[in-house]
Amino acid sequence: MKFCSECGHAVELQVPEHDHLPRHVCPNCETIHYRNPKVIAGCVPVWEDRVLMCRRAIEPRLGKWTFPAGFLEMGETSGEGAARETLEESGAEVDIDDLFVVINVPYVSQIYAIYRGRMRSDKHHPTFESSETQLMREDEIPWDEIAFPTIWHSLKFFFADRAAGQTNFHALDLSRRPLDPSRREVSTGSGD
Amino acid sequence: MKFCSECGHAVELQVPEHDHLPRHVCPNCETIHYRNPKVIAGCVPVWEDRVLMCRRAIEPRLGKWTFPAGFLEMGETSGEGAARETLEESGAEVDIDDLFVVINVPYVSQIYAIYRGRMRSDKHHPTFESSETQLMREDEIPWDEIAFPTIWHSLKFFFADRAAGQTNFHALDLSRRPLDPSRREVSTGSGD
Repeated sequence: MKFCSECGHAVELQVPEHDHLPRHVCPNCETIHYRNPKVIAGCVPVWEDRVLMCRRAIEPRLGKWTFPAGFLEMGETSGEGAARETLEESGAEVDIDDLFVVINVPYVSQIYAIYRGRMRSDKHHPTFESSETQLMREDEIPWDEIAFPTIWHSLKFFFADRAAGQTNFHALDLSRRPLDPSRREVSTGSGD
Repeated sequence: MKFCSECGHAVELQVPEHDHLPRHVCPNCETIHYRNPKVIAGCVPVWEDRVLMCRRAIEPRLGKWTFPAGFLEMGETSGEGAARETLEESGAEVDIDDLFVVINVPYVSQIYAIYRGRMRSDKHHPTFESSETQLMREDEIPWDEIAFPTIWHSLKFFFADRAAGQTNFHALDLSRRPLDPSRREVSTGSGD
């Protein structure tokens, strides 16, 4: 941020009174501009013994596999966001069940909220964001070609719960950027 | 938002290509400016059979009671944010236990992540944000003077779990603004 989004004046980095961190502050209109982490909402869409996976047609991690997930929009619940992203990325309609994973990814200032979802039919199709969409059994998941570690961990939790006949909740902090490039979290802060 | 924070040019509302919502777009440098919901991290700090409550010294809901909670900062996990807010608002040091409540508040574009916390000592004190801090037993909680419905529900979940000897996880959507003014959620989007 270089300019005030309210008045257009150049901003300065200052620690506001009673605050503890430098913020972009406008010396003209005195607006304090905060930046905050973003929420990513997603779901594992289930059809019988398979889950719906999408091959990314956009950066980051173009060509890698994920289940539907994306940035939460203003005015949405995380469950509504998960259903919307599923429709946008895969053409599939889902009913959202329980929130079963929350993962903090502080090195990119993101927090994931992942739900179990029930597909209303087996319909799905490629989209602008997904070059392929495919229903996969657990042994068909391309574990070495998963787009993000958050997706990898969520799928592992999902299948472990399903094998145990349980619907557990899982909280996880990915406390540092993975060293293995294939596991690297490269999401940007953009709102795609 | 009226001006581009990158180049200072006046922004326009447009639906970008492949997007589905109007965004503030800069016609000069082509930056798309997204707005996204904010995460509020907090904890119920426990000392023996009591929990630490704070009386708000700032708006919104000045004079009402809450446990420590506030906007998550860039680069933090929600647990780290909960511990930081506890120290800032009450002077108490806590060890963070489990994430036990996630509440969506779409009408203010917020999502709450609330943890159980263990106080390292019974030390706490008023702060800039809290005019009083007080350890309270369940029957001392001022249920009619709680600052936000998210805080009210989280405390109810906390005490119900404790009575049952359980550590459950609870997800809740507050799907519309409460009609009762005393229960009204009036948080703004600011980053206090």
